Amino acid sequence: MEQKNVIGIDIGGTTVKLAFVTYNGEIIHKWEIPTVSEGGPEKMVQDIATSIANEQRKLELSFDDFKGIGVGAPGYISLQEGIVYEAVNIGGWRDVPLSKLLGEATGYNVRIENDANLAALGEYWKGAGDKADNLLAYTLGTGVGGGIIANGELLHGANGTVAELGHMTVIAEGGRNCNCGRTGCLETEASATGIVRSAIDGIEKGRTTSLKAIYDENGKVSAKDVFEAAAEGDKLAEDVLDHVTTVLGLAISNMAIAINPSKIVIGGGVSKAGDQLLDPLRTKFDTYTLQRTGAAVEFVIASLGNDAGVIGAAYLALH
Amino acid sequence: MEQKNVIGIDIGGTTVKLAFVTYNGEIIHKWEIPTVSEGGPEKMVQDIATSIANEQRKLELSFDDFKGIGVGAPGYISLQEGIVYEAVNIGGWRDVPLSKLLGEATGYNVRIENDANLAALGEYWKGAGDKADNLLAYTLGTGVGGGIIANGELLHGANGTVAELGHMTVIAEGGRNCNCGRTGCLETEASATGIVRSAIDGIEKGRTTSLKAIYDENGKVSAKDVFEAAAEGDKLAEDVLDHVTTVLGLAISNMAIAINPSKIVIGGGVSKAGDQLLDPLRTKFDTYTLQRTGAAVEFVIASLGNDAGVIGAAYLALH
Repeated sequence: MEQKNVIGIDIGGTTVKLAFVTYNGEIIHKWEIPTVSEGGPEKMVQDIATSIANEQRKLELSFDDFKGIGVGAPGYISLQEGIVYEAVNIGGWRDVPLSKLLGEATGYNVRIENDANLAALGEYWKGAGDKADNLLAYTLGTGVGGGIIANGELLHGANGTVAELGHMTVIAEGGRNCNCGRTGCLETEASATGIVRSAIDGIEKGRTTSLKAIYDENGKVSAKDVFEAAAEGDKLAEDVLDHVTTVLGLAISNMAIAINPSKIVIGGGVSKAGDQLLDPLRTKFDTYTLQRTGAAVEFVIASLGNDAGVIGAAYLALH
Repeated sequence: MEQKNVIGIDIGGTTVKLAFVTYNGEIIHKWEIPTVSEGGPEKMVQDIATSIANEQRKLELSFDDFKGIGVGAPGYISLQEGIVYEAVNIGGWRDVPLSKLLGEATGYNVRIENDANLAALGEYWKGAGDKADNLLAYTLGTGVGGGIIANGELLHGANGTVAELGHMTVIAEGGRNCNCGRTGCLETEASATGIVRSAIDGIEKGRTTSLKAIYDENGKVSAKDVFEAAAEGDKLAEDVLDHVTTVLGLAISNMAIAINPSKIVIGGGVSKAGDQLLDPLRTKFDTYTLQRTGAAVEFVIASLGNDAGVIGAAYLALH
């Protein structure tokens, strides 16, 4: 492998994260620019290209110090075709040839993938995944994202919907509405949003809970509030966490039976609960998985935080 | 790739299937020997080696006409280590270094994998899978087996339990007992055995059904009987098929959301029902999957029958 730097980019709904990354995964320099959807993809691509040139100039790095660019974006993306099929959160892009556009604007070879997949790849390369050849990654945030490494490679899928693990159906009938248009998806239950929703359902049913005071005062509760209340023995909060870990434990065990991973990396805001989440999750997981499959698995909390995306994007650019 | 022949072997509970296969997947010659568990792995390996040498002599083929051997066996198998960790159906083998033993007995390089995985690989290479880079294969027989192709490769997993798709939990509570020691696995509902069990449950509950006469006369019904009764409008048989396709449709959709396949290959005895199975299965699948994921997928019936295993084993030996 050529020992050159690459540029990792993680396009999100509010900011675009960028980083200069060495061939062995060290971040030399990182910065952000706002995501401006008005003006369409061409404008955003121009913003990114200009910003990269500016930062290179500031750091006295030349064009030739970099081998290429990797980009993650939220949505359905084809690595092979270099096309963003659909990205609701960044101006509703449809069929945008992002590799070609950004390649023309920068002069670099550009490879693109879904952002959750690249976060998984980042954790695999430099984070808690520790280069496990078979790895599942879940990001429990506003939604639930996923990424799969198998046979030592990130899976790419047939048409940009690989590892949409938040959309596994976990409640076959009568589940909550999901943004995808269906009901009962994992992310309606196991995301921060789902946890809050379950807590509020309990409050509204009149259950006795310390969360009611928070809800009455602020008009809302957070997933963090739920974890804190559970730690103090609040029965509703405990029930919510029991429900979340049961649903998540079953969904993950069914994926583990397919992929036979040695690492399962849990990231996103909800993962800040640490062992308070992992311990009951592990117990539920073991209930639902084959004993031998379970014996291969270590659960770990993601370690790269917000850098996972740009590091995964850098890996994509290098390999 | 070297244009040599290879030897594909599929070790089953009652017979060992063997074939001489060309580098492009054509079977030159195939034959079977009985599976004799008494005498342990060493004896079985010797039987296989002797049989191969005999058939080579008969066909006037020399040792050097073959590049190597691929072997499938039922159980938990590590390709990388060449070890059969556990194989209940062939004499309860445990930690057998099959690659090494058969390599020493034959002089060939030997690669081994789980038999259901190799059946998937066979269908991928020369069968209904049609070289789809992303493919799920289900074998609906006495149990439910599976294999996964992703990024154009058979997945191998961390410790020999990859693609154990029959053991995905589909009934979280109160499911039937499974041979694996847990309850509610897919194969307790969607195998031929599961279909028969559901039909008999209905008969024993006193439901009016044409299957009762068959059951009373023979003391049993078959999955084929259930499909035939359903085709003639028998309500219980229709309900059983509705249940099976619902459970299977949900399980497959959850896997498709992970792998994003373009082909889903259904094989095994139950697949002989053809469109009577695939049509309702497709409808249920579409209910539970992302629209875009569903749009990429074609369901097909496996086309290689009992040859899938030896052809997949040959592919493994070649690549």
